[in-house]
Amino acid sequence: MASAYRDNKLAATNYDIHDLIKKRWSPRAFSEKPIEPGLLRQLFDAARWAPSSYNEQPWRFVVATKNHQEEYDRMTQVLNKNNKRWAPNAPVLMLTLKKDQFDKNNTINKHAAHDLGQAVSYMTFEAMRHNIYLHQMAGILPDVARELFHIPEHYTPMTMIAAGYLGNPDMLPDDLQKKEVSGRSRLEIDEIVFRGQWDNPKRL
Amino acid sequence: MASAYRDNKLAATNYDIHDLIKKRWSPRAFSEKPIEPGLLRQLFDAARWAPSSYNEQPWRFVVATKNHQEEYDRMTQVLNKNNKRWAPNAPVLMLTLKKDQFDKNNTINKHAAHDLGQAVSYMTFEAMRHNIYLHQMAGILPDVARELFHIPEHYTPMTMIAAGYLGNPDMLPDDLQKKEVSGRSRLEIDEIVFRGQWDNPKRL
Repeated sequence: MASAYRDNKLAATNYDIHDLIKKRWSPRAFSEKPIEPGLLRQLFDAARWAPSSYNEQPWRFVVATKNHQEEYDRMTQVLNKNNKRWAPNAPVLMLTLKKDQFDKNNTINKHAAHDLGQAVSYMTFEAMRHNIYLHQMAGILPDVARELFHIPEHYTPMTMIAAGYLGNPDMLPDDLQKKEVSGRSRLEIDEIVFRGQWDNPKRL
Repeated sequence: MASAYRDNKLAATNYDIHDLIKKRWSPRAFSEKPIEPGLLRQLFDAARWAPSSYNEQPWRFVVATKNHQEEYDRMTQVLNKNNKRWAPNAPVLMLTLKKDQFDKNNTINKHAAHDLGQAVSYMTFEAMRHNIYLHQMAGILPDVARELFHIPEHYTPMTMIAAGYLGNPDMLPDDLQKKEVSGRSRLEIDEIVFRGQWDNPKRL
């Protein structure tokens, strides 16, 4: 099983899109192999070159690795019950945050979450290049994060990301093991892309 | 100038990150060359394989090309005054929207904008592979978009994206020409990434 299931995870694309996109998925089983600190910094180097509204760069990351166990254990307290079952397999956990306001005039940045999502994607591509997989979680306890990490006002915890190399699905509880090896699905292109008018069925 | 300025646009990275990320930037001068429809669909194929909270895939796109001039002209009405000066150079304009609620229980999807940002990044990455550049704009008129395109409730227009091949900066007004050839800047890694605690100066 350990290698065969990975074919199952390849995106069933209509076109021959980039390999790094095709092979990406969100594992729950991670190897114990740590991410070398220089390489981890490289992922953030990629993240920071994402575009953002007025180049505000409203993305922030609090990162914990198993090299610093106390920091790592504190980070796991931010996971909800469900994610606590598997996410601590990963050698790296990081909390992502958006900066809510623009620096220049303190008005609300309506695109902060959008742009954080972009930065995380740039990190993801760079990670996939090195066979590092990311699993993003919405299931976190933002108030716990705010308290534990002394998050200042006008920054909002958004997700937790588990990162590391692929592990053996056998390490997971049965129900999660099933998810780990099952196929992936997406809406069709024509369900999300409309030509010239909302819900227009005409093809591009 | 026509080729030399492009070196100026290469990301000044600390590490040797992926070429497609390094060379990406947001041009205002676009060539007249259209994007072939099959290739345009390929970009959306990449977009749909982004991850999203509960696999909700809260991304939608209304797309106009110069192959359908009336649709294209309608799309330009959604641009704010500043973006109207240059965005209609691009062979493709697309409005991006987020789906505000989860399908399964109609509760608010707090990660919809975040996940739209990811889909757009996946599209960007695929586009760069084919030397297609994207320029995302926050400067749009969402109410005009809602009316012109009959956007239903619970979907929110977020950005406009101009897409196409690089053009000659000479086509732009002087002030925009200057922007088109100037360097790019980002916060340092240590300004956006903290180890184990907010604002912790310790290195990963």
